[in-house]
Amino acid sequence: MAARLIVLYSPPDDPAAFDAHYRDVHTPIVRRYPGLRDLRLTRAAGVAGRDPSFYLIAEMAFDSRAELEAALASDAGRESGLDLRNFAAAGVTLLISDDEAAFDA
Amino acid sequence: MAARLIVLYSPPDDPAAFDAHYRDVHTPIVRRYPGLRDLRLTRAAGVAGRDPSFYLIAEMAFDSRAELEAALASDAGRESGLDLRNFAAAGVTLLISDDEAAFDA
Repeated sequence: MAARLIVLYSPPDDPAAFDAHYRDVHTPIVRRYPGLRDLRLTRAAGVAGRDPSFYLIAEMAFDSRAELEAALASDAGRESGLDLRNFAAAGVTLLISDDEAAFDA
Repeated sequence: MAARLIVLYSPPDDPAAFDAHYRDVHTPIVRRYPGLRDLRLTRAAGVAGRDPSFYLIAEMAFDSRAELEAALASDAGRESGLDLRNFAAAGVTLLISDDEAAFDA
Protein backbone atom coordinates (compact mmCIF):
# COMPACT_ATOMS: atom_id res chain seq x y z
CA MET A 1 0.00 0.00 0.00
CA ALA A 2 1.46 3.30 -1.08
CA ALA A 3 2.00 6.33 1.09
CA ARG A 4 2.71 9.96 0.31
CA LEU A 5 4.57 12.61 2.23
CA ILE A 6 2.80 15.90 1.51
CA VAL A 7 4.79 19.02 2.32
CA LEU A 8 2.94 22.33 2.22
CA TYR A 9 5.12 25.44 2.14
CA SER A 10 3.68 28.70 3.44
CA PRO A 11 4.04 31.71 1.12
CA PRO A 12 7.66 32.89 1.32
CA ASP A 13 8.69 36.50 1.75
CA ASP A 14 10.99 36.20 -1.26
CA PRO A 15 9.54 33.74 -3.77
CA ALA A 16 12.47 34.01 -6.16
CA ALA A 17 14.98 33.14 -3.43
CA PHE A 18 12.72 30.30 -2.25
CA ASP A 19 12.44 28.87 -5.74
CA ALA A 20 16.18 29.05 -6.35
CA HIS A 21 17.00 27.32 -3.06
CA TYR A 22 14.28 24.73 -3.58
CA ARG A 23 15.55 23.90 -7.06
CA ASP A 24 19.30 24.09 -6.52
CA VAL A 25 19.73 22.82 -2.96
CA HIS A 26 16.63 21.17 -1.55
CA THR A 27 15.46 19.08 -4.49
CA PRO A 28 18.83 17.33 -4.97
CA ILE A 29 18.64 16.27 -1.30
CA VAL A 30 15.06 14.98 -1.69
CA ARG A 31 15.99 13.01 -4.79
CA ARG A 32 18.45 11.06 -2.63
CA TYR A 33 15.64 9.72 -0.41
CA PRO A 34 15.88 5.92 -0.46
CA GLY A 35 12.70 4.38 -1.87
CA LEU A 36 11.42 7.61 -3.45
CA ARG A 37 9.08 6.61 -6.29
CA ASP A 38 7.87 10.02 -7.39
CA LEU A 39 8.28 13.69 -6.58
CA ARG A 40 5.38 15.89 -7.66
CA LEU A 41 5.58 19.65 -7.33
CA THR A 42 2.76 22.07 -7.98
CA ARG A 43 2.18 25.68 -7.17
CA ALA A 44 -0.89 25.88 -4.95
CA ALA A 45 -3.72 28.07 -6.18
CA GLY A 46 -6.57 29.45 -4.11
CA VAL A 47 -10.25 28.84 -4.68
CA ALA A 48 -12.43 31.56 -6.21
CA GLY A 49 -9.49 33.86 -6.79
CA ARG A 50 -8.45 33.94 -3.15
CA ASP A 51 -4.80 33.74 -2.19
CA PRO A 52 -3.86 30.18 -1.27
CA SER A 53 -2.75 29.36 2.29
CA PHE A 54 0.29 27.64 0.86
CA TYR A 55 2.74 28.43 -1.92
CA LEU A 56 4.12 25.09 -2.98
CA ILE A 57 2.80 21.53 -2.66
CA ALA A 58 5.49 18.84 -2.71
CA GLU A 59 4.30 15.23 -2.79
CA MET A 60 6.74 12.37 -2.38
CA ALA A 61 5.46 8.88 -3.12
CA PHE A 62 6.73 5.69 -1.52
CA ASP A 63 5.68 2.07 -1.78
CA SER A 64 4.64 1.96 1.86
CA ARG A 65 4.42 3.92 5.07
CA ALA A 66 7.47 2.02 6.31
CA GLU A 67 9.50 3.12 3.27
CA LEU A 68 8.39 6.71 3.84
CA GLU A 69 9.44 6.63 7.49
CA ALA A 70 12.76 5.04 6.54
CA ALA A 71 13.40 7.83 4.02
CA LEU A 72 12.77 10.49 6.65
CA ALA A 73 15.14 8.72 9.02
CA SER A 74 17.88 8.37 6.39
CA ASP A 75 20.83 10.71 5.96
CA ALA A 76 18.99 12.48 3.13
CA GLY A 77 15.87 12.78 5.27
CA ARG A 78 17.75 14.36 8.13
CA GLU A 79 19.63 16.67 5.77
CA SER A 80 16.36 17.70 4.15
CA GLY A 81 14.84 18.53 7.52
CA LEU A 82 17.83 20.62 8.50
CA ASP A 83 17.77 22.42 5.17
CA LEU A 84 14.22 23.70 5.79
CA ARG A 85 15.62 26.43 8.03
CA ASN A 86 17.56 27.76 5.05
CA PHE A 87 14.54 28.61 2.89
CA ALA A 88 11.24 27.76 4.61
CA ALA A 89 11.22 30.26 7.46
CA ALA A 90 7.66 31.25 6.52
CA GLY A 91 6.50 27.83 7.65
CA VAL A 92 6.08 24.29 6.48
CA THR A 93 3.37 21.72 7.17
CA LEU A 94 4.12 18.01 6.80
CA LEU A 95 1.39 15.42 6.37
CA ILE A 96 1.40 11.74 5.62
CA SER A 97 -1.35 10.37 3.39
CA ASP A 98 -1.30 6.63 3.87
CA ASP A 99 -3.42 4.49 1.57
CA GLU A 100 -3.93 2.19 4.54
CA ALA A 101 -5.85 5.08 6.05
CA ALA A 102 -7.94 5.65 2.93
CA PHE A 103 -11.64 4.99 3.17
CA ASP A 104 -14.77 5.21 1.14
CA ALA A 105 -17.49 7.55 2.21
CA MET B 1 -4.37 18.79 -17.96
CA ALA B 2 -5.86 17.52 -14.73
CA ALA B 3 -6.47 19.54 -11.61
CA ARG B 4 -7.23 18.57 -8.03
CA LEU B 5 -9.15 20.33 -5.32
CA ILE B 6 -7.42 19.47 -2.05
CA VAL B 7 -9.48 20.09 1.09
CA LEU B 8 -7.68 19.86 4.42
CA TYR B 9 -9.90 19.60 7.49
CA SER B 10 -8.53 20.76 10.82
CA PRO B 11 -8.87 18.30 13.71
CA PRO B 12 -12.52 18.39 14.83
CA ASP B 13 -13.61 18.63 18.44
CA ASP B 14 -15.86 15.60 17.96
CA PRO B 15 -14.32 13.24 15.40
CA ALA B 16 -17.22 10.78 15.51
CA ALA B 17 -19.76 13.50 14.74
CA PHE B 18 -17.47 14.87 12.01
CA ASP B 19 -17.13 11.44 10.41
CA ALA B 20 -20.86 10.77 10.50
CA HIS B 21 -21.71 14.11 8.91
CA TYR B 22 -18.95 13.78 6.36
CA ARG B 23 -20.12 10.33 5.33
CA ASP B 24 -23.88 10.79 5.47
CA VAL B 25 -24.37 14.39 4.38
CA HIS B 26 -21.26 15.93 2.85
CA THR B 27 -20.00 13.12 0.64
CA PRO B 28 -23.34 12.68 -1.18
CA ILE B 29 -23.20 16.39 -2.08
CA VAL B 30 -19.61 16.13 -3.31
CA ARG B 31 -20.45 13.12 -5.45
CA ARG B 32 -22.91 15.33 -7.34
CA TYR B 33 -20.12 17.66 -8.53
CA PRO B 34 -20.29 17.79 -12.32
CA GLY B 35 -17.09 16.49 -13.88
CA LEU B 36 -15.83 14.79 -10.71
CA ARG B 37 -13.42 12.04 -11.81
CA ASP B 38 -12.26 10.79 -8.45
CA LEU B 39 -12.73 11.41 -4.74
CA ARG B 40 -9.85 10.27 -2.54
CA LEU B 41 -10.11 10.42 1.22
CA THR B 42 -7.31 9.69 3.66
CA ARG B 43 -6.79 10.33 7.31
CA ALA B 44 -3.78 12.58 7.67
CA ALA B 45 -0.96 11.28 9.81
CA GLY B 46 1.82 13.32 11.35
CA VAL B 47 5.52 12.86 10.78
CA ALA B 48 7.70 11.22 13.44
CA GLY B 49 4.74 10.48 15.68
CA ARG B 50 3.63 14.11 15.92
CA ASP B 51 -0.03 15.02 15.70
CA PRO B 52 -0.93 16.09 12.17
CA SER B 53 -2.08 19.65 11.51
CA PHE B 54 -5.07 18.28 9.67
CA TYR B 55 -7.49 15.44 10.30
CA LEU B 56 -8.80 14.52 6.89
CA ILE B 57 -7.45 15.04 3.38
CA ALA B 58 -10.09 15.07 0.64
CA GLU B 59 -8.83 15.20 -2.94
CA MET B 60 -11.22 15.70 -5.82
CA ALA B 61 -9.89 15.15 -9.32
CA PHE B 62 -11.14 16.89 -12.45
CA ASP B 63 -10.03 16.82 -16.07
CA SER B 64 -9.04 20.47 -15.98
CA ARG B 65 -8.91 23.58 -13.86
CA ALA B 66 -11.94 24.87 -15.75
CA GLU B 67 -13.94 21.74 -14.82
CA LEU B 68 -12.89 22.16 -11.20
CA GLU B 69 -14.00 25.79 -11.11
CA ALA B 70 -17.29 24.87 -12.80
CA ALA B 71 -17.93 22.21 -10.16
CA LEU B 72 -17.38 24.72 -7.36
CA ALA B 73 -19.76 27.14 -9.04
CA SER B 74 -22.45 24.48 -9.55
CA ASP B 75 -25.45 23.89 -7.29
CA ALA B 76 -23.58 21.01 -5.64
CA GLY B 77 -20.49 23.18 -5.18
CA ARG B 78 -22.46 25.94 -3.49
CA GLU B 79 -24.33 23.43 -1.34
CA SER B 80 -21.05 21.81 -0.34
CA GLY B 81 -19.59 25.17 0.67
CA LEU B 82 -22.63 25.99 2.77
CA ASP B 83 -22.53 22.57 4.41
CA LEU B 84 -19.01 23.18 5.77
CA ARG B 85 -20.48 25.25 8.60
CA ASN B 86 -22.39 22.18 9.73
CA PHE B 87 -19.36 20.05 10.54
CA ALA B 88 -16.07 21.85 9.81
CA ALA B 89 -16.14 24.58 12.45
CA ALA B 90 -12.59 23.64 13.46
CA GLY B 91 -11.40 24.97 10.11
CA VAL B 92 -10.92 23.98 6.52
CA THR B 93 -8.18 24.84 4.03
CA LEU B 94 -8.85 24.62 0.31
CA LEU B 95 -6.09 24.38 -2.27
CA ILE B 96 -6.01 23.81 -5.97
CA SER B 97 -3.22 21.68 -7.39
CA ASP B 98 -3.21 22.35 -11.12
CA ASP B 99 -1.02 20.18 -13.31
CA GLU B 100 -0.53 23.26 -15.48
CA ALA B 101 1.34 24.66 -12.49
CA ALA B 102 3.46 21.57 -12.05
CA PHE B 103 7.17 21.87 -12.64
CA ASP B 104 10.33 19.88 -12.49
CA ALA B 105 13.01 20.87 -10.04
